[in-house]
Amino acid sequence: MLDPFFIPKSIAVIGASSNPRKLGYAVLKNLVDGGYAANHSVYPINPRADKILELPVFPTVNSVPDSIDLAVIVIPYPYVPDVLRECGEKQIPAAIVISAGFREAGNVGLERELELIQIAKEYDIRLIGPNCLGVIDTYTPLNASFAAGTPPSGPMSFMSQSGALGTAVLDIALAGRLGLSKFVSLGNKADVDEIDLLLAWQDDPNTRVIMIYSEGMSNGQKFIQVAREVTRKKPVVAIKSGVTQSGSRAVSSHTGSLAGSEQAYQAAFSQAGVIRVNSMDELFAASAAIGYQPSLEGDRIAIITNAGGPGILATDALERAGLSLARFTNETIQKLVQFLPDAASAANPVDVLGDALSDRYQFAIDTVADDANVDGLLVLLTPQAMTEIDQTATAVGELSFKTEKPVLGCFMGEKQVKSGIDILTAYNVPNYSFPVQAAKAFKAMADYRLIRSRPLPEFVQFEVDRESVRDMFNRVRSEDRLSIGDAEARGILQAYGLRIPRSEVAETPEQAIEIASELGYPVVLKIASPDILHKTDVGGVKVGLSNAEDVRDAFELMMYRAQRYVPEARLWGCLVQEMVPSGGSEVLVGMNRDPQFGPLVTFGLGGIYVEALKDVTFRVAPFSREEAHEMLEEIRARALLDGVRGKPPADKEAIIDTLLRIGQLVLDFPEIVELDINPLIVYQQNQGAIAIDMRLILKEELA
Amino acid sequence: MLDPFFIPKSIAVIGASSNPRKLGYAVLKNLVDGGYAANHSVYPINPRADKILELPVFPTVNSVPDSIDLAVIVIPYPYVPDVLRECGEKQIPAAIVISAGFREAGNVGLERELELIQIAKEYDIRLIGPNCLGVIDTYTPLNASFAAGTPPSGPMSFMSQSGALGTAVLDIALAGRLGLSKFVSLGNKADVDEIDLLLAWQDDPNTRVIMIYSEGMSNGQKFIQVAREVTRKKPVVAIKSGVTQSGSRAVSSHTGSLAGSEQAYQAAFSQAGVIRVNSMDELFAASAAIGYQPSLEGDRIAIITNAGGPGILATDALERAGLSLARFTNETIQKLVQFLPDAASAANPVDVLGDALSDRYQFAIDTVADDANVDGLLVLLTPQAMTEIDQTATAVGELSFKTEKPVLGCFMGEKQVKSGIDILTAYNVPNYSFPVQAAKAFKAMADYRLIRSRPLPEFVQFEVDRESVRDMFNRVRSEDRLSIGDAEARGILQAYGLRIPRSEVAETPEQAIEIASELGYPVVLKIASPDILHKTDVGGVKVGLSNAEDVRDAFELMMYRAQRYVPEARLWGCLVQEMVPSGGSEVLVGMNRDPQFGPLVTFGLGGIYVEALKDVTFRVAPFSREEAHEMLEEIRARALLDGVRGKPPADKEAIIDTLLRIGQLVLDFPEIVELDINPLIVYQQNQGAIAIDMRLILKEELA
Repeated sequence: MLDPFFIPKSIAVIGASSNPRKLGYAVLKNLVDGGYAANHSVYPINPRADKILELPVFPTVNSVPDSIDLAVIVIPYPYVPDVLRECGEKQIPAAIVISAGFREAGNVGLERELELIQIAKEYDIRLIGPNCLGVIDTYTPLNASFAAGTPPSGPMSFMSQSGALGTAVLDIALAGRLGLSKFVSLGNKADVDEIDLLLAWQDDPNTRVIMIYSEGMSNGQKFIQVAREVTRKKPVVAIKSGVTQSGSRAVSSHTGSLAGSEQAYQAAFSQAGVIRVNSMDELFAASAAIGYQPSLEGDRIAIITNAGGPGILATDALERAGLSLARFTNETIQKLVQFLPDAASAANPVDVLGDALSDRYQFAIDTVADDANVDGLLVLLTPQAMTEIDQTATAVGELSFKTEKPVLGCFMGEKQVKSGIDILTAYNVPNYSFPVQAAKAFKAMADYRLIRSRPLPEFVQFEVDRESVRDMFNRVRSEDRLSIGDAEARGILQAYGLRIPRSEVAETPEQAIEIASELGYPVVLKIASPDILHKTDVGGVKVGLSNAEDVRDAFELMMYRAQRYVPEARLWGCLVQEMVPSGGSEVLVGMNRDPQFGPLVTFGLGGIYVEALKDVTFRVAPFSREEAHEMLEEIRARALLDGVRGKPPADKEAIIDTLLRIGQLVLDFPEIVELDINPLIVYQQNQGAIAIDMRLILKEELA
Repeated sequence: MLDPFFIPKSIAVIGASSNPRKLGYAVLKNLVDGGYAANHSVYPINPRADKILELPVFPTVNSVPDSIDLAVIVIPYPYVPDVLRECGEKQIPAAIVISAGFREAGNVGLERELELIQIAKEYDIRLIGPNCLGVIDTYTPLNASFAAGTPPSGPMSFMSQSGALGTAVLDIALAGRLGLSKFVSLGNKADVDEIDLLLAWQDDPNTRVIMIYSEGMSNGQKFIQVAREVTRKKPVVAIKSGVTQSGSRAVSSHTGSLAGSEQAYQAAFSQAGVIRVNSMDELFAASAAIGYQPSLEGDRIAIITNAGGPGILATDALERAGLSLARFTNETIQKLVQFLPDAASAANPVDVLGDALSDRYQFAIDTVADDANVDGLLVLLTPQAMTEIDQTATAVGELSFKTEKPVLGCFMGEKQVKSGIDILTAYNVPNYSFPVQAAKAFKAMADYRLIRSRPLPEFVQFEVDRESVRDMFNRVRSEDRLSIGDAEARGILQAYGLRIPRSEVAETPEQAIEIASELGYPVVLKIASPDILHKTDVGGVKVGLSNAEDVRDAFELMMYRAQRYVPEARLWGCLVQEMVPSGGSEVLVGMNRDPQFGPLVTFGLGGIYVEALKDVTFRVAPFSREEAHEMLEEIRARALLDGVRGKPPADKEAIIDTLLRIGQLVLDFPEIVELDINPLIVYQQNQGAIAIDMRLILKEELA
């Protein structure tokens, strides 16, 4: 429960100061000016002061006669541990540590931070920070931060891993166009992190949209799991920074070289239902629309404008964002035609013309809003000679109160339109300086509609032979190996229910001939030895053997050569393997383990599509059948799976099945750090897929 | 010469009015308030007034005693032609027609506009408009528009096809953060268009950057030709609206279905050296940086910030935009390390920390600006508790005056940072609300550096047999055909120097055998008839004929079948054709004619790359060898041309040669509306390419 951070009954400010240049003064002043102190107890703690900002000062928390819900700690780092212990003795359930000098200051700082965590655990204190700006809840009202003021109330709650970015956001809010419900500067996330706040805010009636600025997640798997549930109730918009840099720290493996933090975040946010934006502008654009306007129940947008040019820009922007222009009913068109001048356009975008006064705007928007084919309205305005800016803004605002559809404004300009935008803001209609931003906002609303309506993912559990894989890994480790291929890898594939070429090890030529006739000719013969890694180098692979004589010849030649070239190798005999049918397509299924989100499963078409075109897609395991299916739809070359140039459609179900089973394998065995099916051959519909081979690498040490 | 529009010695306002609600009043008031009337003669023309705004009124232009340089016409459309004629009689060289009711009002209006054009030609009057907002030159100063005021002076000249969008832009300028040199509302472009203004502004000392808002071009070929020269001297930034809509009006042909207005503009702007932006925000972001700051001479950017988060955001944004982070010299790093606190970062991005006062910022930016490895500076600021916003802004501004490198600001926030941004503006340092916009601005600067430094395109002229193609087209037309393929098409390819499979028509089996032995076995036999389009349907194609007997059999069988199944067909015999070598790659070379820019030549890899992946690129002919080479680099599958999976690199020079020769063909014959080489087979380096066949469609009527 994080309530003590947002609606505490009393607060102690440890390190309160009467020096206006100190943070301990700024925090106390915000508690007073922000309105908290008027109705709650605030206890400044300072051994060397009597009164600060008219409030009586106590030397320690222990000397405060009443109980304390929240401690805000603003003292130099050396004193923080002891003070936190005092808070524990006083049974204070929550503390915001603003002080810096912890994990962000290197190894010594990290040790200090671990000490804090230890103390917090011992006394059961929840902690925000250290190294943070503080916490704001505009509804309590509570401003327990050293921000430059208290922002106006609104529907958005923002958690920021960067306090500095928080100051910029709060400064924008202070200018009046943006209202916040809660603001939390997460700092070093010693205790409270994104997951805790998602859980705390999911049912908060004052929060309509959750905004996240994140630089990294400590528990990616749990984040996905929690956000998946939260985003069904409440929209979450997030920006992740540091993607390109981290992306360059590429992992070494084949699959790994394609993946990076960027891809992991893309997959994780998509699976979690988090609306991802790429800039702070988009974060605001999307959150304002979702926070202030009703939900968008379809993707058909109506544009009303007093000029053609901006109408075309808006059309372009909406189409590019994947939304569609509403097609009005005949009734709407007739009504518009009757009322509007001849030169006006009654089709979407509705052009009310440059000489439109507010009454013409009002008629047009009211008429269009009533149309059942319209899901949302975008009202454009350019400040022309006759334009009644303020009255038009009022008409738009009034409409937004009447209709259940979202209405966004795009009053273009700055000086003349300012008063109009202020009116829109008062009516909770977000305004965008140009159509592109408004289109992105509508896009985020449309995305959220899809997120809200998608089914909860079901994670299938296949019946597999987990034990045999466990045993094999133990055996491999006992032999000091970490890399697995060949027969062992095929054993794993089989244990997890994937089809592999039928094969059996023969110890003698006679046995090989017997197995071959069982499998049916032609067959493949491969030398079977745990000590020969590069079989082809010693002539240890022969394909297309079509009769008993060929099998005998190949067997004996391989034995002879192996003994001659690798005399120290243990020889188990030869593997006799069926030749897989021709005509299939190679696809790639792989996995590498992302440090933040865990097992990242890759899919792509094989060969040049992966190597030259980098046409691959990712999901974090576990994922559902639907999510596996999405992977097949996300690659650029997706049309190839549907069959082109006379090729029949591929067996998509077989690919999905493979992805899901591999997802299960890598969750069952967290010690697998990397894996590649090499290749998976997919046949036409209902003909399945065969995993020819796999390469797999185990973690060096078991955690 | 368009000087009379921008520095007229005297102006007549025809339709001047004393009614403040009329445009004729607004225009006159802007001429007075904007400062023009103070130093020049302004003649209000109105038969029913004496004085307006203290200026004596004349009943007609004829009654004005002095000469007039510019007429601004603000009267209802029916009177415009007569008035324009009067202007002609008075020898007024230039007129701005603000009145609406012309081309934009349908067919009747178009006739009126054609009349205007006729009169203007007759009297040698240059015309801006009709249906426009007017013209502004802040340096003259001249405000001959009905805009809501006169914007501050600055380095940007803006031409807009939408007057309404112009009002929005002027309103933004009026708010004070943006200075304009010239503004022209182009209206219907009856006479003066983008090309005229590019030519007029290319040497204008008051214009450092040209901005264009365009909805469509009337003379795309000439635009490319002129802009190509202008952009070498002066940067041009443009936004084109209506791309997605027009794009959907897809042309019917195979190549055509891939091309659209969007692709044509993309190609044309790239060839013209125009920096293309996709939103009004980017138009401003790019133009302000280019207009106010010195040029960016490399792509190595230094970031200075007082917080880590925004620094990471900026790094992401710069990397995404294709710029690079500067790597400082050791000297710079040592200097920074000495001066900055321990916790600060002396590497790029330089983090001066949240408690940085302006002196620390100043030291960091001055040091970094001196580093030879730095081409441009981005100064980030978040308004933290100790931040000296105004002093830091002054330090940044002072640096920008000293250094020859571009400096952009990103002071984040709104309320507190406002005064700092005002200071930056006074120093001509553009500020961007978030790092993404600043990165896009740097990207535009980097683009312009490349544009300025690229060589003037040279258009090769191959020696070709133009006459034979001319003759063939005449013959085809005389037979009422428009579609050309087969032997005729191969004849065209050969006439333009492209390699085709060797072949000859044989009238008898004996002749066929003789030709085959000359070509060398195996050969292909095809029925030769102008009346059989689908040869395979009548068994009219046989491949891999490897001896005389096979050739004779095939010849006779084809003749028999053709006579039996298509008795009315004219039979010329059989075409004997060499079998082309195997191992080449299919590529697509095509052309379709864009209504605005003319011949749009397409390139892509054949098969699925075109069909399923739409991986194609375009150039408007004529294009240079370098531009043809760019096409090969632009497709996503470009790596395939360099050889993958053991395939050798393809003969790129042969592809380029084909593109250039096809470019010449479609310029020589504007009547070709569509063309596809089907396919072009490209062999490995130095082995050339063979055009197997071509399909070509002629325009219905010769213009």
